[in-house]
Amino acid sequence: MSNANADSLVASHDPNHPANLICDLCKLFYNNGWVTGTGGGISIRKGDHIFIAPSGVQKERMLPDNMFVMDLQTKEYLRVPQSLKPSACTPLFLAAYTNRNAGACIHTHSQNAVVISLLYDKVFTIANIEQIKALPKITEPGCLGFFDTLTIPIIENTAHEEDLKDSLEQAIIDYPAATAVLVRRHGIYVWGETVWKAKVYNEAIDYLLELAVKMRQLGIPPDGAIGSERNTRVV
Amino acid sequence: MSNANADSLVASHDPNHPANLICDLCKLFYNNGWVTGTGGGISIRKGDHIFIAPSGVQKERMLPDNMFVMDLQTKEYLRVPQSLKPSACTPLFLAAYTNRNAGACIHTHSQNAVVISLLYDKVFTIANIEQIKALPKITEPGCLGFFDTLTIPIIENTAHEEDLKDSLEQAIIDYPAATAVLVRRHGIYVWGETVWKAKVYNEAIDYLLELAVKMRQLGIPPDGAIGSERNTRVV
Amino acid sequence: MSNANADSLVASHDPNHPANLICDLCKLFYNNGWVTGTGGGISIRKGDHIFIAPSGVQKERMLPDNMFVMDLQTKEYLRVPQSLKPSACTPLFLAAYTNRNAGACIHTHSQNAVVISLLYDKVFTIANIEQIKALPKITEPGCLGFFDTLTIPIIENTAHEEDLKDSLEQAIIDYPAATAVLVRRHGIYVWGETVWKAKVYNEAIDYLLELAVKMRQLGIPPDGAIGSERNTRVV
Amino acid sequence: MSNANADSLVASHDPNHPANLICDLCKLFYNNGWVTGTGGGISIRKGDHIFIAPSGVQKERMLPDNMFVMDLQTKEYLRVPQSLKPSACTPLFLAAYTNRNAGACIHTHSQNAVVISLLYDKVFTIANIEQIKALPKITEPGCLGFFDTLTIPIIENTAHEEDLKDSLEQAIIDYPAATAVLVRRHGIYVWGETVWKAKVYNEAIDYLLELAVKMRQLGIPPDGAIGSERNTRVV
Repeated sequence: MSNANADSLVASHDPNHPANLICDLCKLFYNNGWVTGTGGGISIRKGDHIFIAPSGVQKERMLPDNMFVMDLQTKEYLRVPQSLKPSACTPLFLAAYTNRNAGACIHTHSQNAVVISLLYDKVFTIANIEQIKALPKITEPGCLGFFDTLTIPIIENTAHEEDLKDSLEQAIIDYPAATAVLVRRHGIYVWGETVWKAKVYNEAIDYLLELAVKMRQLGIPPDGAIGSERNTRVV
Repeated sequence: MSNANADSLVASHDPNHPANLICDLCKLFYNNGWVTGTGGGISIRKGDHIFIAPSGVQKERMLPDNMFVMDLQTKEYLRVPQSLKPSACTPLFLAAYTNRNAGACIHTHSQNAVVISLLYDKVFTIANIEQIKALPKITEPGCLGFFDTLTIPIIENTAHEEDLKDSLEQAIIDYPAATAVLVRRHGIYVWGETVWKAKVYNEAIDYLLELAVKMRQLGIPPDGAIGSERNTRVV
Repeated sequence: MSNANADSLVASHDPNHPANLICDLCKLFYNNGWVTGTGGGISIRKGDHIFIAPSGVQKERMLPDNMFVMDLQTKEYLRVPQSLKPSACTPLFLAAYTNRNAGACIHTHSQNAVVISLLYDKVFTIANIEQIKALPKITEPGCLGFFDTLTIPIIENTAHEEDLKDSLEQAIIDYPAATAVLVRRHGIYVWGETVWKAKVYNEAIDYLLELAVKMRQLGIPPDGAIGSERNTRVV
Repeated sequence: MSNANADSLVASHDPNHPANLICDLCKLFYNNGWVTGTGGGISIRKGDHIFIAPSGVQKERMLPDNMFVMDLQTKEYLRVPQSLKPSACTPLFLAAYTNRNAGACIHTHSQNAVVISLLYDKVFTIANIEQIKALPKITEPGCLGFFDTLTIPIIENTAHEEDLKDSLEQAIIDYPAATAVLVRRHGIYVWGETVWKAKVYNEAIDYLLELAVKMRQLGIPPDGAIGSERNTRVV
């Protein structure tokens, strides 16, 4: 495919075009401290085209022209920006696309995610917080209810990011209701049916992780506290 | 009513028009972490027209065209944006308009509100902090004084947001001086005579909730501390 | 004086004109959480003209047209914006202008200031932190050195802000080296020879107050710690 | 050299010109709280020209015209802005340029750096956190791995910033793998081959310092915790 054709894949005046959205969202995530030091990344799927941010670039200064584009079926790159490396997260993004038919996948180094991964063992769970209702049930239509428990599996980190693929895919199989996976001492992967849903899920989960850390600091159990006997079901 | 007429209800070049203000304030609240993950909401009353942000949208990317408009007397929608759901907070906003003749009502998922709801039982109180003076007496003209105690009732959360209506209205009756109600494990509702007053009350209350959490972490009682014997009245 | 003349006092295209600067700095302070809920304020002196932000307005939405202008000699208002009240801090700003020949005075409700006022009794002191070098000696030319101790008096709050005047002036007399006064359970007043110096002093002090709270939380004494035996003089 | 020639050294429409970048980055660092109160600084090298921000100016309001330019070989100033003093950090920036052939050097008063310097003695170390992979090995090509330990030496502060030069140079000799040096009760110096690498190293290190403080507050050892037995090598 000629360069011109490849470049046309990322050139658009539509602010909602994946190549433009990735730049906007990376700026937002950078300001949230989720992707500083070039950590983290994001990928958006449009049909069979997967848009992926490059590796090791300043997330707040990315340009649409920096985007890689891959064909989901052939796994071949339709566009490779000059002098840039594809994100090491690519195999993990593909896991979400292949196993969950995701429309977008977000990876951050959120400190809330890392701290929670140091406080919990095999899974993080939280219940009876209104914000949980922003998250999907996955195994059935609709979102979690206030009395439901959110469960996010925690997998161990590996020396090389791409080596997380197997355990991430195993977690996706073992936790069919999960829309995110925590990576111990590393961060979190969150995916959704669309980029907007992935963004909302990531925001809601980070809110809950931050809240759980605060509750721990104040000695409040994550699924019970003052008043819990009044509005907490056994979970 | 024709669509054109309905659309004219939210189309204005005046930055202080409710449809424009709701968008601006949601952006501000989003940056404060009060309405991330599409949580929370805001409503402004203009005469008998109630402007309400839709449910489940990116609060920082809302447009005036997304606004619902309801007639306060008939409770009928004068405008329903295509493919959007009205906020589940609507009955609660109406409770503030009907029972307190409010001009605006703000609902956030502020983490300070949620944490305080886990540390206090039936009411949150704080006294002898200058910021209290930004809040109204309600039962008489003017604002609270430095030596007054701010009291905010805490109601239990319910599975469905609209089911909060009865207990919210009961709290409004039981606490005639309250301009806000905390919802345990959920967030806070704050209202005021105008949108600007509601905004200021919400900012001042969140400041006090945040301060009370810090005081708890440092082992300082919320209505006394070093120096309290010198400038604290018995409350 | 005619309205036109009065208005000309606050109308300027120069971004460094006091009426413009007050608006810019209030926006900055609002984003720092120092003046939310309409708390706090700022005043700048230009010759014998004192520019004062009004009371009870949204600090991030102030306009030059909202400014009061007072004559330092006669204490008469040269300009009174319609339907606005002068800041209750005005007598306290005047105390800094009169007793210290200040060029500007900043008042915030910084939570760091309030928390420190609950942890310390009559004075806050901190030593051996590089940031101290941003603060002036006052009693002699130049700034504090790394081994010097910064001392900020703490006065008790009063029911009415204007009643702080006497104790503030007493603190200014008792602590001739102070460029700031903490008000218990209220906030802080910081002044300087120019608006830029007042801004820098306020930033440096808030940095030190925040650091002192963190040190307290970690059990580190504010003027000693690991390594202190190596680079701390007895203070 | 004529003034005009000197001025041409800092006048450029290229946003990546050092004189422009220093202004942009100082604004960013100011918003991160790293250089408030005129603390900290930054220098960028372009060939043999060293661009240095002036001392004691508002970091968020700097202009390219405020920049000093020095010749790395002769150590003579090629440009001295009127009525400005060169940064007291200059000898320390030169140490990084001379001993490490750095392309840029960043100095901040980050509170995370100061707090860590109060919790650790002669060195700060952290291991088994993904963010470490953003940092260089220095003594060999490439970046640290997940199982590697990041080591940052801590030197004692001195009364005068320029007096830090000897101990900073000694630390650079004693820790050949270091790309940063912590200064107790003061802040941190971070350098890199290019300004972008220095920026990324500074962000990644501050992320790790902040995380280490949180881990300390939660009683988690910086190089081990829940799950550590599963993915931590002895370091």
